[in-house]
Amino acid sequence: MVKLTEDMKESIANVRPLPLATASKEGIPNVIPIGMCKLVDDATIWIVDNYFLKTRNNLEENPKASLYVWGEGSKGCFQIKGDVEIKTEGDEYDAAYAMAKEKGEKYPAKALIVMKITDVFECKGGPEAGKKLL
Amino acid sequence: MVKLTEDMKESIANVRPLPLATASKEGIPNVIPIGMCKLVDDATIWIVDNYFLKTRNNLEENPKASLYVWGEGSKGCFQIKGDVEIKTEGDEYDAAYAMAKEKGEKYPAKALIVMKITDVFECKGGPEAGKKLL
Repeated sequence: MVKLTEDMKESIANVRPLPLATASKEGIPNVIPIGMCKLVDDATIWIVDNYFLKTRNNLEENPKASLYVWGEGSKGCFQIKGDVEIKTEGDEYDAAYAMAKEKGEKYPAKALIVMKITDVFECKGGPEAGKKLL
Repeated sequence: MVKLTEDMKESIANVRPLPLATASKEGIPNVIPIGMCKLVDDATIWIVDNYFLKTRNNLEENPKASLYVWGEGSKGCFQIKGDVEIKTEGDEYDAAYAMAKEKGEKYPAKALIVMKITDVFECKGGPEAGKKLL
């Protein structure tokens, strides 16, 4: 099982937005900036769906996602791939809903996307780009 | 045919990196930051492949891409989808190769990815997110 390094965890906490890529079942890629997300253990990211449209449709039919972490506050540049589950009820969803409402009453928190990280890759430009790290 | 607005063109010129999403033919999404790219007309972006790995494999088997434009210097946040062609020879490739070498001798410029823009969507968070603009 993947276990993120401390540098990776710190980077995920610091960088916003993160670009989240999905694909339809026909393989049409999609990418959006996400702001409301949180690492909840060594290999799981929670992402709140406030305004997802194509992203949500894609995840319903093809529960795979990819994102990278790079920007102000990141240690290096790395890419994450994972499998997702969509939750619209239950304890985890309730906690994510509360988290969204704390940030602002306006956020609908339509669903919680639970992303289980399966792979991490080097994402900095150069001959090592794309190398599997975890 | 899509024709980007002046604000969109200015934003594409200003913002780096841009997150480029692709997908394998099985629909596994991938996203990387790209720096070496350029709008060459109202509906075409040139992207230089220096260090692509999964991205290149994905584009070989599934020539579709998506990116968004948001950050320092952008007017709004919008998402682009398009069809790509990979060029490793010919006048256009030669021009892209020269462009890369001007930026630095170290860049291999292995290919030119020509992305023909087919759709543009609103990508700012809020009730309009995902709405088709062009």
